[in-house]
Amino acid sequence: VGSLVPDVIEFFFDVASPWSYLASTQIAGLEERTRVTVRWRPLLLGGVWKLTGARSPREHWTENRRRYQDVDFAAWVEHYAIPFRKPSHFPPNTLIAMRGAVAAERLGRLVPYAHAGFRAYMVEDRNISLPEVVLAVGEGAGLDRATFEALLHDPGVKDALRANTEEAVARGAFGVPTFFWKGRMFFGNDRIALMESFIRHE
Amino acid sequence: VGSLVPDVIEFFFDVASPWSYLASTQIAGLEERTRVTVRWRPLLLGGVWKLTGARSPREHWTENRRRYQDVDFAAWVEHYAIPFRKPSHFPPNTLIAMRGAVAAERLGRLVPYAHAGFRAYMVEDRNISLPEVVLAVGEGAGLDRATFEALLHDPGVKDALRANTEEAVARGAFGVPTFFWKGRMFFGNDRIALMESFIRHE
Repeated sequence: VGSLVPDVIEFFFDVASPWSYLASTQIAGLEERTRVTVRWRPLLLGGVWKLTGARSPREHWTENRRRYQDVDFAAWVEHYAIPFRKPSHFPPNTLIAMRGAVAAERLGRLVPYAHAGFRAYMVEDRNISLPEVVLAVGEGAGLDRATFEALLHDPGVKDALRANTEEAVARGAFGVPTFFWKGRMFFGNDRIALMESFIRHE
Repeated sequence: VGSLVPDVIEFFFDVASPWSYLASTQIAGLEERTRVTVRWRPLLLGGVWKLTGARSPREHWTENRRRYQDVDFAAWVEHYAIPFRKPSHFPPNTLIAMRGAVAAERLGRLVPYAHAGFRAYMVEDRNISLPEVVLAVGEGAGLDRATFEALLHDPGVKDALRANTEEAVARGAFGVPTFFWKGRMFFGNDRIALMESFIRHE
């Protein structure tokens, strides 16, 4: 008796999000352990905030909460043993970078592009808001520069990014990383293990 | 070469907090797996909010965020396979109940009292704000009613609860459950696994 719901994990992300970066480093292991394919879904985090009426959560936080955010993030970086350098270009505008992700998806290179984008912004401290950095990320992911650059301005690519963002919000997202698996939504890098336990015990 | 920092996990909690309840059900297993003793530390969540200047986080949340909070909590309840009935007496005032926890600690019954308090509020839907419910919780934890009731009004008990609350905030807490282990702070039921991985890899 098979389920009608496809056994796929959707992973909504934006390269502007440090917590999406954390999650992005765990996807390969997640797929290996669960044998469930992860579908990477680029969206625009700023768009999610706009659509849901949210402001950056930091604005509401107390001093202790703010301090813990950094300690907590550093603990995850240590736990995952991944490289990270705090971005100096903050907050970024990832509109071009995330259109680039949609373009890379069309060219069959979404996952390498996403990893390259996270690396550029979260490890190499490059200004991901700049078109030339996005183009370099595309080249780093093996994309032909001219083809990629043309797609960045393609109305279909722009529409697809907007559609992804709207879809995520319509399905309940309010930030990233957000995962969907068989009708369940999981928000946050810290929910990967919880999601995995549901998949394991299915 | 031993460490000068005692190998103990401190667990700050308030029976008003559903996420503290989740965490409370995992402490025995945590101790068993890590062989590190957990020291239960009662505090007053309302006091933490007052001292840090926080308001209930729900006020700042978007509709999607609010909805997810309930879905997420239900997922943890399912994952842990624990009983839960949404409290109808909300928000509670746990001043008496948490003074009761300090009193129970003096009588050597803190952990049974805490479990009984969580059960009363989170499973049996009793109004934990009421002194008579607190007294019944104490009796359920094996405390002598008269001795326990007298301690509820003991200035030393009142001071100790305030001191715990102030100490937690001074050390960086902004909510509960909050754990401390060897100079590291971990906030939230969802950080138990992260803390455990640090203990394991020490």
